[in-house]
Amino acid sequence: MISWNNLDQAESYKKLLALKDHVCLPEVMSGENGAKRVAQYAVPMAAGLSYNYAAKMVDDEVLCALKALAEETQLSAKYEALYNGEVINTGEKRLVLHQLTRGQLGSDVMADGVNKREFYVAQQKKVAEFARRVHQGEITNAKGESFTTVVQIGIGGSDLGPRAMYLALENWAKQNGTFHMDARFISNVDPDDAASVLKSIDVSRSLFVLVSKSGTTLETLTNESFVKDALRNAGLDPAKHMIAVTSETSPLASSSDYLAAFFMDDYIGGRYSSTSCVGGAVLSLAFGPEVFERFLNGAAEEDTLAKNPDPLQNPDMLDALIGIYERNVQGYPSTAVLPYSQALSRFPAHLQQLDMESNGKSVNRFGEKVDYVTGPVIFGEPGTNGQHSFYQLLHQGTDIVPLQFVGFRSNQAGMDVVIQDSTSQQKLCANVAAQIMAFACGKSDPNPNKSFAGGRPSSIIVGDQLTPEALGALLAHFENKVMFQGFVWNLNSFDQEGVQLGKVLAKRVLAHDTDGALRAYSDLLNI
Amino acid sequence: MISWNNLDQAESYKKLLALKDHVCLPEVMSGENGAKRVAQYAVPMAAGLSYNYAAKMVDDEVLCALKALAEETQLSAKYEALYNGEVINTGEKRLVLHQLTRGQLGSDVMADGVNKREFYVAQQKKVAEFARRVHQGEITNAKGESFTTVVQIGIGGSDLGPRAMYLALENWAKQNGTFHMDARFISNVDPDDAASVLKSIDVSRSLFVLVSKSGTTLETLTNESFVKDALRNAGLDPAKHMIAVTSETSPLASSSDYLAAFFMDDYIGGRYSSTSCVGGAVLSLAFGPEVFERFLNGAAEEDTLAKNPDPLQNPDMLDALIGIYERNVQGYPSTAVLPYSQALSRFPAHLQQLDMESNGKSVNRFGEKVDYVTGPVIFGEPGTNGQHSFYQLLHQGTDIVPLQFVGFRSNQAGMDVVIQDSTSQQKLCANVAAQIMAFACGKSDPNPNKSFAGGRPSSIIVGDQLTPEALGALLAHFENKVMFQGFVWNLNSFDQEGVQLGKVLAKRVLAHDTDGALRAYSDLLNI
Repeated sequence: MISWNNLDQAESYKKLLALKDHVCLPEVMSGENGAKRVAQYAVPMAAGLSYNYAAKMVDDEVLCALKALAEETQLSAKYEALYNGEVINTGEKRLVLHQLTRGQLGSDVMADGVNKREFYVAQQKKVAEFARRVHQGEITNAKGESFTTVVQIGIGGSDLGPRAMYLALENWAKQNGTFHMDARFISNVDPDDAASVLKSIDVSRSLFVLVSKSGTTLETLTNESFVKDALRNAGLDPAKHMIAVTSETSPLASSSDYLAAFFMDDYIGGRYSSTSCVGGAVLSLAFGPEVFERFLNGAAEEDTLAKNPDPLQNPDMLDALIGIYERNVQGYPSTAVLPYSQALSRFPAHLQQLDMESNGKSVNRFGEKVDYVTGPVIFGEPGTNGQHSFYQLLHQGTDIVPLQFVGFRSNQAGMDVVIQDSTSQQKLCANVAAQIMAFACGKSDPNPNKSFAGGRPSSIIVGDQLTPEALGALLAHFENKVMFQGFVWNLNSFDQEGVQLGKVLAKRVLAHDTDGALRAYSDLLNI
Repeated sequence: MISWNNLDQAESYKKLLALKDHVCLPEVMSGENGAKRVAQYAVPMAAGLSYNYAAKMVDDEVLCALKALAEETQLSAKYEALYNGEVINTGEKRLVLHQLTRGQLGSDVMADGVNKREFYVAQQKKVAEFARRVHQGEITNAKGESFTTVVQIGIGGSDLGPRAMYLALENWAKQNGTFHMDARFISNVDPDDAASVLKSIDVSRSLFVLVSKSGTTLETLTNESFVKDALRNAGLDPAKHMIAVTSETSPLASSSDYLAAFFMDDYIGGRYSSTSCVGGAVLSLAFGPEVFERFLNGAAEEDTLAKNPDPLQNPDMLDALIGIYERNVQGYPSTAVLPYSQALSRFPAHLQQLDMESNGKSVNRFGEKVDYVTGPVIFGEPGTNGQHSFYQLLHQGTDIVPLQFVGFRSNQAGMDVVIQDSTSQQKLCANVAAQIMAFACGKSDPNPNKSFAGGRPSSIIVGDQLTPEALGALLAHFENKVMFQGFVWNLNSFDQEGVQLGKVLAKRVLAHDTDGALRAYSDLLNI
């Protein structure tokens, strides 16, 4: 029987609080003991990745307390309930089924009168078939020319995840002969966004993917009109250049405005939709359906690892628990995501949405205010770029920011250069290794301005290369981490009521139905 | 006589601390009083911009206390000392002269035996002349073809600022007939970064700008080699395709490897170098020297406003002081920068470096540890995209994050579409107005999950359009804000010792001179 209780009701949490500042990182990471930690404090992830937490502020005692917390908060049972189709999204009374888009973890899930796994697989097959017909020149523009560019029109989860995934695999696909079409993305309601993308492409050879679950997202419909105008101005029929990704009940689902429509449903939250056809359409068109399938396989493998009830053998759960320790025991308010891979340049922006929109909440799943802090601020940029930017504060600022590194032993593009006896890739890897140790141990200096206190915790996810499988595993790792943290905090991580008020007020502004300061701001902005 | 004292020694700071939670935003921003605040709590900036702080947690009493703090910490006198050439960067014993790259604020500054203003103007003229000759086809590739693309090779301040400025003006320049060349940027030591850029351009028609003040930045020299290999492989002479931006004493300054060299000096920090030839070369080549000059004029005008000793008439100083109140009195650990303009998509990344690298420090300018918090974490993405991402946490998370909005009444590209009776630009502006009010006042609801506590402070910088002048003013505003905050915290905002330790350790890794955990991490990453 599952009990949904607040974190501060857990006995194991009280014990954990007593372990504040229990581990002195500069001490435990020094000498051969440090090397031992690097060897021992690692858990295998899917697709050959490894989660290494040697430089986190934990030792066997803290880990033991975290394990007790995982048991008391029933993390495994809650995950099981989720993938077996319980109504976990209590606010919106919805199942939460994004893991089902990539694999079957438990029993069959029936909803809306169908087997949901079969539904998602069927949609994925439809996408794959459509993509193959585009690539083979069976689906073309009116002149019979092949499409060369795919343009995703969507915002939030319909943009950030798919965009980050596209950038992550673009060079890999080019190097591995599976690159079919360039992808572009239009998201912002700022008309300069669409204008800029449209200027950079040949619209006559472009296929647009309109992504909106409800079919009513204002930004997306506005950008659709923008694009349709551009197509008409070029003498083209918009209906021959557009496909829709939406829910079956949306007004877009059976419209003749689209070449084809592919379906998701209410059980896939926008920020969890990269493995549904929201990501599937653009990624299958860009790289081929086989690459998208490999991406799904990596995610499915990671989801399976996340079933292990022992956090020491479950990288997603362990990462979640260490995050709880840092946030609620150590009191750190933010976390930086630092991938040492240019291909992951927009991965932190995706995680920013995934994490902050899921767990940036003050009430529990029953709508009661909680008395502890929840989701942290998430930010990040790829290394080594970040080193020359905000790392100053990370090393010597007055607040401690926990760090999440990602690194790969090989690069994607297969080009490199040797300077001063090492390749660029070796320099990249040397930098991430060096940073972990600089953050953990610091270095004293007679000049306090050149002193580093250390004690700044980090973990690293390491892999051989950023392949489709590795990317899938990485994505699922963070989705599952966020899910487990939501369970610990007793939140509903799957709604986003915090975005509603702004929408309501914006409509009032546009209807000129305002007074007081809202009217004054509207005037200031000439609306 | 200037005294450099710690913040907690100021009498006015003690008074300010007593004003914690003094203003209840949902209260003061309601009704006609809220409208009055929007009208009154505004200061003109340069280039027609306005800094509006109505939705900040201030009232006349807090403002009075902040003014007293400004006086006691001698902000105006310290700025004057800086622009008149005192050694403000005490750690590195350097003058701080970035304002001088765009205007003369005080007396002549002589250093290295020359008048520095004349030196910067001379470099700018050299850049302008070079750019004109490229545009007029006098400087071409070996075949006599014009250059069509400029590629900046640099990292940190040589990348983030110029890249953000380029993106900010790209559409404006295209719309205004001043767009000459595409620009690309190579920064990361990850070889996939350079590989990807090189694949996307015609190297035979590309001009590369190598930017490194010291001429020894490892990432940049590595990428230079990468590019030279690519040029040679294409049968081209690298020396005919490269220019250098560096200091006169660097090994690059008089090398025959470059078509030309343009100079900055030790008095321009990397993160403050967008208005020197670090930004000047790439922006003048891309948009023409006249556009770059207009950008400088906007910055110079803002620098002049920053001289006003009354913070209520000095937008840069006032923004700085309100930030101190939020950070040191209210205790908020981070700040989000939210431009409602897709053109400013990378402006937050630039501000992240500018702010966090300048003021993310724990020792004062004399190298003594301070007992108060300093620079916050800075992050942000353009609106409306952010609304569909991390705004959930900003509205309903357990921590309060102060917000800095930016908005413009008109877009840049001159294309728009009417949907549901409003243009995209009107929707964009309606959203920022709505968000400010939603954050400030919130809204109660019987369902706590749909309740918004409000009390989340924001300011907005508003302008007619993002022109070169407006961009210069915006850039200088934040540079000056960070400078004033550094003065209040008694920091040296112009060095970055925090980046050194990682560099030293990375060299040891590459030399295989490691033991303990560093060796273990090196092995893990196969170095």
